[in-house]
Order: sequence, then structure tokens, then C-alpha cells
Amino acid sequence: MSTTPLERVRADIEAETPDDIDISRVTFEGPELIIYSSTPEKFAARSGLIGELAGTVRKRITVRPAEGAQASPAEAKPKIVEMIPEDAGITNLQFYPETGEVLIEAEKPGLVIGRHASTLRDIQQEVGWTPEVLRTPPMESSTVDNVRKFLLENRDERREFLERTGEQIHREPMHETDYVRITTLGCCREVGRASFILNTPESRILVDCGDKPGAEGEVPYLQLEEANPIANLDAVVLTHAHLDHSALLPLLFKYGYDGPVYTTQATRDLMGLLQLDYLDVASKEGRTPPYESEMVREELKHTIPLDYGDVTDIAPDVKLTFHNAGHILGSAVCHFHVGDGFHNVVFSGDIHYEDTRLFNGAVNDFPRAETLVMESTYGKRNDHQTDQEESEEKLLDLIQETHDEGGQVVIPAFAVGRSQELMLVLEEAMREGEIPTMPIYLDGMIREATAIHTAYPEFLRDGLRDRILHEDENPFLADQFQQVDGGREMREDIAGDDPCVILSTSGMVTGGPIMGWLELLGGDPENTMIFVGYQAQGTLGRSIQSGRREIPFSDRGSRTKQLTLRFDVESVSGFSGHADRGGLMGFVETMHPRPEKILCVHGDEDATDQFSSALYQEFNVRTHAPKNTETFRLD
Amino acid sequence: MSTTPLERVRADIEAETPDDIDISRVTFEGPELIIYSSTPEKFAARSGLIGELAGTVRKRITVRPAEGAQASPAEAKPKIVEMIPEDAGITNLQFYPETGEVLIEAEKPGLVIGRHASTLRDIQQEVGWTPEVLRTPPMESSTVDNVRKFLLENRDERREFLERTGEQIHREPMHETDYVRITTLGCCREVGRASFILNTPESRILVDCGDKPGAEGEVPYLQLEEANPIANLDAVVLTHAHLDHSALLPLLFKYGYDGPVYTTQATRDLMGLLQLDYLDVASKEGRTPPYESEMVREELKHTIPLDYGDVTDIAPDVKLTFHNAGHILGSAVCHFHVGDGFHNVVFSGDIHYEDTRLFNGAVNDFPRAETLVMESTYGKRNDHQTDQEESEEKLLDLIQETHDEGGQVVIPAFAVGRSQELMLVLEEAMREGEIPTMPIYLDGMIREATAIHTAYPEFLRDGLRDRILHEDENPFLADQFQQVDGGREMREDIAGDDPCVILSTSGMVTGGPIMGWLELLGGDPENTMIFVGYQAQGTLGRSIQSGRREIPFSDRGSRTKQLTLRFDVESVSGFSGHADRGGLMGFVETMHPRPEKILCVHGDEDATDQFSSALYQEFNVRTHAPKNTETFRLD
Repeated sequence: MSTTPLERVRADIEAETPDDIDISRVTFEGPELIIYSSTPEKFAARSGLIGELAGTVRKRITVRPAEGAQASPAEAKPKIVEMIPEDAGITNLQFYPETGEVLIEAEKPGLVIGRHASTLRDIQQEVGWTPEVLRTPPMESSTVDNVRKFLLENRDERREFLERTGEQIHREPMHETDYVRITTLGCCREVGRASFILNTPESRILVDCGDKPGAEGEVPYLQLEEANPIANLDAVVLTHAHLDHSALLPLLFKYGYDGPVYTTQATRDLMGLLQLDYLDVASKEGRTPPYESEMVREELKHTIPLDYGDVTDIAPDVKLTFHNAGHILGSAVCHFHVGDGFHNVVFSGDIHYEDTRLFNGAVNDFPRAETLVMESTYGKRNDHQTDQEESEEKLLDLIQETHDEGGQVVIPAFAVGRSQELMLVLEEAMREGEIPTMPIYLDGMIREATAIHTAYPEFLRDGLRDRILHEDENPFLADQFQQVDGGREMREDIAGDDPCVILSTSGMVTGGPIMGWLELLGGDPENTMIFVGYQAQGTLGRSIQSGRREIPFSDRGSRTKQLTLRFDVESVSGFSGHADRGGLMGFVETMHPRPEKILCVHGDEDATDQFSSALYQEFNVRTHAPKNTETFRLD
Repeated sequence: MSTTPLERVRADIEAETPDDIDISRVTFEGPELIIYSSTPEKFAARSGLIGELAGTVRKRITVRPAEGAQASPAEAKPKIVEMIPEDAGITNLQFYPETGEVLIEAEKPGLVIGRHASTLRDIQQEVGWTPEVLRTPPMESSTVDNVRKFLLENRDERREFLERTGEQIHREPMHETDYVRITTLGCCREVGRASFILNTPESRILVDCGDKPGAEGEVPYLQLEEANPIANLDAVVLTHAHLDHSALLPLLFKYGYDGPVYTTQATRDLMGLLQLDYLDVASKEGRTPPYESEMVREELKHTIPLDYGDVTDIAPDVKLTFHNAGHILGSAVCHFHVGDGFHNVVFSGDIHYEDTRLFNGAVNDFPRAETLVMESTYGKRNDHQTDQEESEEKLLDLIQETHDEGGQVVIPAFAVGRSQELMLVLEEAMREGEIPTMPIYLDGMIREATAIHTAYPEFLRDGLRDRILHEDENPFLADQFQQVDGGREMREDIAGDDPCVILSTSGMVTGGPIMGWLELLGGDPENTMIFVGYQAQGTLGRSIQSGRREIPFSDRGSRTKQLTLRFDVESVSGFSGHADRGGLMGFVETMHPRPEKILCVHGDEDATDQFSSALYQEFNVRTHAPKNTETFRLD
């Protein structure tokens, strides 16, 4: 008699569960297995049991009370509050009778969880509700608030989606996994429109779906046969929130996609922030955005956040594991285990190989890895960045000099990533008196992005995490950081005032408030513009960096005028979120195990070519610098 | 005001046609333009007009009488007969009022056509019917008869198909042709299951769809995204009739394909013969064939034959031209001109580079050719074949020796190709007394395949064509050729009789009558088996050639017994239908223009690898030895 995968899992669970513990219902929610029980407290009481069951069925397991098995909210609430130390700082407590879960949002979630999750178990045992814990951000973030509120409002719809997705993931496979292919929909011999299909006879997964900075019309080749029908993709995986990886992801939902988006929790919130801004910028510039904000909400509803290190089934023949990539908050190196040992593929996403102030360096240690799809942003022979110490020194010197001349410093920066790194450098230098304390203005979404960082300190380096969690030491809360929230008028006031540092988006000078700063500060030779991040071909940032000084400029009256830049233009290379050539080589050199094949992507033609040749010569692995729209067989 | 492509063509035609010539209707039939006129005789009278119009609209043009514009068949028939010289040998004269065409089948079609087509024009002028001329095969061929009869019976349905296809080909394109891709569905690092997709943003074309000799389960990867939906392919192109290129083509119609198959007329008939035999062999061996014979008929109905050299629109952005490939009758090198000068791709199909007795060497001269997809059967470093003279000498020596010892020679041969080459060698050698005249038995479909050769002498070398057309010199009609048409009993009689030569299918000893000959002749050391063609990996032919002498054998009672081969096993390399390593290199060396990129396919892994490296080193072109299921971007 044939049984379904769920029936088989249920039988395994029942066989290993003592008879006095009830199992009312077993269901998949996305990659997770949910057990409903009328005796959830007994599950909680046997501290090792859930772990054992998870090991047997190789799934993450959540136990929820079956209907009626828990105390009423009115009864449960005071008990829960009493069981949690007051220091935890509960800011929200919400009951969901449909699933028997209670959401606890607190300033110090660790105190809610307790040692070895003991408090959580106590709560479950005492009141029957299954607690779910979230951190209250130490800096208020409207993004985090809105995303969480939105997901809570759509909790029922979301559960249906998760159950449907669970069935899809755990379906009976129709085909043997006898090949693995990668199709390049973008990001080959160019920086931008990252998008790849990972494909087996059984399943199809899209990795990233970005735009191309400086070339709005050049979008991923979603029309390729390999990507279609979009609606039938098994999964979408997002390596990190930057728009060149995420901008067009909501478009998939417009094309009929209705499946899961896997990413980290931090990336989920950051991508929402950046995508909504992307729509905003497009409409301000008079372009028709490719999708509406409704599609961002659809995407959020379909996002399944995964933690680093969690091995997760995302298709009948594919397991996904995220690892820290060191590039920006929540950025992930993605490891795909395909076909029960058949093949393993690692997508590096964007990586930083060395530790930085914000993050540990990218993980490059895997159980197995035959193919590596790797970024090559700084893959050219001479793409050497100065080291962190030297870079910081150079930056501080430039700020000091500009300050001494009475000038102002403007730094175009991605809202997410480099801005926070610079904030840490500047805060420390001012605190320790290396440079004079002066205002540091944050323009664009930098403050909001910073708040999101503080909401997910798990993704940051240990020391920094600890400081953030102690309010009086949180470096991001230093007084000199001031949000530019007064529009053009405030910018004019600042520009006419004393020396200061301005961090402003967009990072490649393709639009946003940096355009106003160009106009206000660009004409004065006493001011300095400092590039600290990668400037893609075709962006205004790249052309200013390369020496262009006459730039066309849209006046407020929308006439185009010419602007002559007279300020000093400098570049400091060591703050990039990307590994330099040495870092990229180091990532492969120390990678364990050494991959057999490497596809070099996410770099200009010279960078991917030179890096591909170098890897081949140095490590004797098969390397390629693919073109867009190609399909490689990996096995 | 927007107009359709057909309306634009019609306007061009009308602008260039004198007012006294009527144009009732203009329509596409497949790639051709059909003009219906109530004054067809005036078209015929202006001998240069149709050519000029064809030049203007860049289409092949056929003029047909509009309904009522022609004499009644009863009236027309005697007039036509009178206008054609008696020597032409008319064997069939048939009127098709629906299209105003009259089919004339004759032994000497040249005499029907007349000098510069003057007789054809006279007929059109005199009776108003448009003549269509076919050659009556000099040897009776049931295949040619059946195919022609079948197509005539389905003439109306076929015209509808052609009109529908014409509309598809000449549709308004929806996409700019800004890339060209090739997907390998088979035939990479292996010999067999030839099948490729040529793909632009606008159109998708399948080239070949073969089986893999010796590995029935390994069929082309038709399930790949790039091939689907099969029903929406723009065109299927067949390079030649051998089953490793054609066997699974009818399957496409089972999968819902309803579009054109482009190939030469000779290939059309040969593929029908071989595919029906393929079904026959499968069912005899107890395998379930992947499709029914009905699908072969569907395929024939959808076949649009093209002559060598005809530049033909097969999609809005693709023109196809066939050229002689020298491999077997009707075999073609396929030149694809994509996107009005955007890119040119040549598929070599299987080629023979040097002239042989049957065919001129493969054409390698093209207006443009950036990418070459090339066979590599004999691509290994040491894949040298002896030259024709030496090979013939060796073959004749072996036959002489076997004859002198009273033994018999059995040669496994493809029905199509090498058998006819050998027949020419043996007939000449016996006629000139180089070896004793003895019976040459043709077993399997060799005689039928030979008859098809004589039906299409245009595909053969000049001298041979002339001889075939003079009955008393037709080498294929020599007395010593005897058909084995008496089954097992006849084989037993032959095996017990005097020295002789037996040509028998299948060419790779994978089934068919050769299996009977193994059993009857294999045990006697006085007999000789001579391999003259390529033996693919996994075939019994390859294993016998490599020294295996104990072979399992299905008895008539279907028990498996062991057969020990004691006869002499020899190989003579120079008769292959394939270029050897030198020939392959020569094809590229003298190819005009030199391609920029070469994909080496249709060869074992060693052959494609070594050939790819050699081409790169010798000619400094980009070369690849692809895997199956990969997709290359060419531009």
C-alpha cells in the first residue's frame, strides 16, 4: 500500500513517541514539521524528545497545542509574565488561538528563552501555549515594525501558504536526479542583475533577482526557457538585500510565482526597505517601476527566514544551508546539497573574506562542495585594497585635512553595509580623539538601515553585538549621528555650516539625496568627496571616480544644466564590502573542500576573465567566466 | 495603417507585375510564395518575370492557375503528352484541380523540363496547368512509391498545413534577436542521440532527434526546459536519415508537435524506411517502441523537402540552407543565418571530407559562419583511416583470400551509405577481373536503400549519376547482386554453399539479419567478418571488433546460448562514411570563412576532447567539447 511522505513521517514519529503523549495532527509548514498535541506539556517535559524525533525524520520540529489543550489567554497571560524575569523587557504579548502560539516580543529575548530554553519549556508546560520569541529593536525601526505587523496580520493566510509549500517540498519525486544545471540569467561579465537558475530533472530554484545599477533596462533574462514557467519554480533564494540581487524579486509574484522565498530574517527586512525605496526612486525619476508595492508585500508573505547553519529541505532533491558571507547584514553564502549526495553547489553571493568591524569573514568550510559560483567584483590582477588599518588612517586623514580647511566631507554609501562600518570607524575616532568631534549627517535610509542592524545583532560580530545590547555603549546611538530629515532646506543649512561628514545614498551616485549634495558641495574646492565602495560601470559614481568633472544635472525645474565639480575626489579602497583580489583568492585557497569547478560571475569582463584564469593556474580547477543566458551542467 | 507581412509582399508583387497579368490570390505555403493567377500563361510567357519577383521579395515563387483558368484534364492530358518527347518515359500523369497542378512522373525528368525549363513553360502556357515533375526510380522502390502515394493522397491536408506553416514563418516578430543559443539534448561526449536546440528570443529550432545505438534507454533530453513546449518549436531540421539522428523524430508528433520537418527529399524517403524498420526491430526484440507507425506518417505529412543551396526562411529570424555533406544520400551540412546578419551557425551533421565513389566531399564554403557545431567521430589523435585505394585493395585481398580458402565474407553495413559504396567497389572489381565474380548477397534493407539512391541521382557524383541513368550501365543492377528474400532458410542455403560476399544490416551488429549470419558463419575459421564502418561504444560490433569472441545469443526458442566466434575478424577503415581525424582537421582548415567558435560533438569523450584541443591549438579558435544538457550562447 503506497503511503505519502507525510504519512511515513507521522508513522516514524508515532513509533518513537511514548504512548502517553498525544499526537493529534502532523503537518508540514514549509520545511518544518508541526506536531499538534493535546498534551504539549508532556512534550515540553521530556527535554530531549523533540531533538531525537528531529534527528529521526531529519526535520526541524515544532510542537503546538491541539485546540483546547491550552489555558485561556486571560488566564495564561499573567502566568507567562510572571515566569519571565522583569529585565527581559516584554514589549508585546500576543496570543494566536488558531495555532496555539503566543508571540513574546522583548528587549532581551535571551531572558525570555532561558538557559537551554528552560523558560520556554516551562511556559509550554504551564499554560500549554507554544512561545515564539522576537527581539524588540534597541533603535526604533519602522521597517522592522511594519514587516512584523504585516506578517502577524496575515498569519492565517501565511499558514495556508506554508502548508501548501510543505506539501510541495515533501512531494514524491517524479524524476531521478541525474544532472544538475546552472543557467545564468544575469550577472555574467558584468556587475548587476544577479540571477541564476539551479535546475535538476526534479526541481528548479532561482537564486537572486537583481537590477543593474546604471542600466535600468538591463534586467535578468527571466524570459529564458530555463526560467519558465516562473510560476512553477520550486523556490527562490536570496543571498542578500542589495538591489543588484533583490530589486526584481517582487516581479516574480507579478509573473504568477506563488512559492517560497528563502533568505535570512535580516535580509527579509532589509530587502523590503530597499525595494520600497527602489520603487520610490523610480517614480521620482519619472520611470515606470516594473511592479507595484503590493508585490513587495506578496514577497514578504512568501518569505521563509532561515538561520545560518540550518540545513533545510527546499525541494524533494535539494537542501539549502546559509552561512555568513561577511558582506552586509544577513548576507549569506548558499550551500545547495542536491540529490542525496549527487552534487553540492555553493553560491558565494557577495563576500568579504577578512573580518571587518561589523562582521566575521565569509564561511568557506562545507561538508562537500563540487561546484562554486563565485563573485569576482575585485577579480582583476591589480584589484588590491589597502588593509583596514591603513584605510581607516587614510579616511581619517582626509577628514582631518578637510576639517582643517573648513570644508565638508561627503561619502556616497550604500545605506546597508558600508555606512554602518564607517559609522563605527568615525564614532571610535571621535571618541578616542583621533579626529575632532563634528556632526556626522546620515542622509537617505542610512539611519533606518542602522536600526535594522540593531534589531538583528546575532548577525554581527560578538563584541559589537554585546555593545549594541547595552544601550549606553551602542555606538550607533552616539550624539554626533544626525538624521537629515528636513529635506533640501536642511541640506542647504548644513552645507553652509561648519565642517562635518555626510554619509549619503545612493552608493554609486545613481540618484537619491547624494545628487543634492553634489550640487551643494561639488563646486567648492575645500570640500572632499570620498568613494569607499565599488562603483559599477555605467554609474555616475564610476565616471566621477574616473576623473569626469563636468556632469549633467537635473535642476529642480527639470531643465538639465551642467555642473562643474571642483571639490577634491578621493577613493579609499579598504572599506568595500567585497573581498579584494587577494581575499577572493584566499577564499578559494582555504576553502574546504576545494571545489572541482568554479564559475566566476559578478565582475566586469576583465575581472571575471582574469580571476578565472588565475584560479585555474593557481589551483588547477576547472574555471569558467560564463556569459549571460548560458546553461552549465555541473556533474 | 499596419499591414501583415503577406499584404506587404503582395503589394510588392503587384507593383512589379504588368497590368495585363492577373493576380487573384497570394499565399504562403511553408517557405514558398504561391501566386494564383487567372492568366498563368502570361506569367509563363514572360520568362524572366518570376525570377525578378522572387528576387524582389526574396522568396521562391510558384504560379498556379486560379480556379477555372485552365483546360479540363480530358482536354489537357493529350496536349501535355504530345508536348513531351516520347523518350522521357512518362509513367504517371495526374491532375489536381484544387491547386491547378499536374504531376508528371517520368523516367527522364530532364526531357519533361526541357532546356531552361522551356517545356514546362510551354505546358503552362498551353493548358494552364502548373506542371510538377518527379523522377520514376530506375529501380523499383516500394519506399519511394509509398511515400509519394501517401503524400498525394494527403495533398489537401498537406496544403492546409503548408499555409499554416507559411503564416508562422512570416509572422511579425515579437522579439529582437539579440542572442543565439544552442542547447545540447544529446550527442555530446558520445556517439548517438543527436539532438540540439537552436534558440533565439524569437524562435526555437530542433536539429536532429536520434537514438543511441547499443543503449536504447538513452534518448535525447527532450524534457529539458529549453526544448519545451515541444509543440511550440518553430521547426525541426534533419541532417540525414541515419537512426542516431532520426529515430525519435516521429516521437515529437506524439508530444504534440505539428510543425514542419525540413530535410532533403532523399532523406525524407530514407528516414521513413529506417524509422519503420526501427519500429519493426523493436517489436521483434520485444521492446515497446516509443511511438507507432502512425507517427511516421504524421512526420512525412509535415516534411518540407529542400534542395542543396536553397536559402529558405524557416522562422521570422532564421534562414536555413542545406549543403552536401558527403556522408550518405541526402545528408546535409546545415547553415543557419540568424537575425539578418546577427549570427551564422553551421551544423556539420555527419560528414565525409574527401570525395568517395558515391558522393562529393562535404561543402565547407559559406557566406558567413561564426559558429560551427561539428561531428568528431574520428577525432582522436590516431584516428587515421587508410586512403580509398589502399582500403579497397585491403578489402579485395581479404575477399580473395577467403574465397581461395573456400570461405565466405560477411560485412555488417548500414543499409544506407556504406553498402552502396561497397557495391560499387565490388561490382567494378569483378567487372575488371580483380577478384573472381561471385554472388554478393544483400540482406536487410540494403536493396531497398539502393533503389532509393537511384531515385535521387542528383545527390550522387556526376559520373555515377550518368551511369545510373543509363540502364545498361547502372552498377547497382549487376547480376551478382542478389537480395536475401527467403529468410532463414535462404541464409542456411547460402551459408552451406560456395564462396560469396554478404552485406547485411545492422551495421553495428545490434540486431537484424546480421545476427543470423553470426550464428551461421561465426563458427567456421575459413569465413571472414569485415567491419567497414564506425562501431559505437556499447554495440556488439564494437565488442567483437575489440576482440570479444564469446557472445550471448538468443536462440529461436528465445533461450540465450553462448556463441563462440571462430571466423576471422578484420577491419578496413577507409570505407567509413565519416571523415577521419585528418579529414576533420581538413574540413576546418579549408573552411571559408574560419569559424570563431567550434563545438565538438558526436564522438566519444576522448575523441571530442582531443579534437577540441587540436582545433584550438592548430587554428586558435574557441573550442568546446560540451556535455549533454548544456546551453551555449554563441554571439
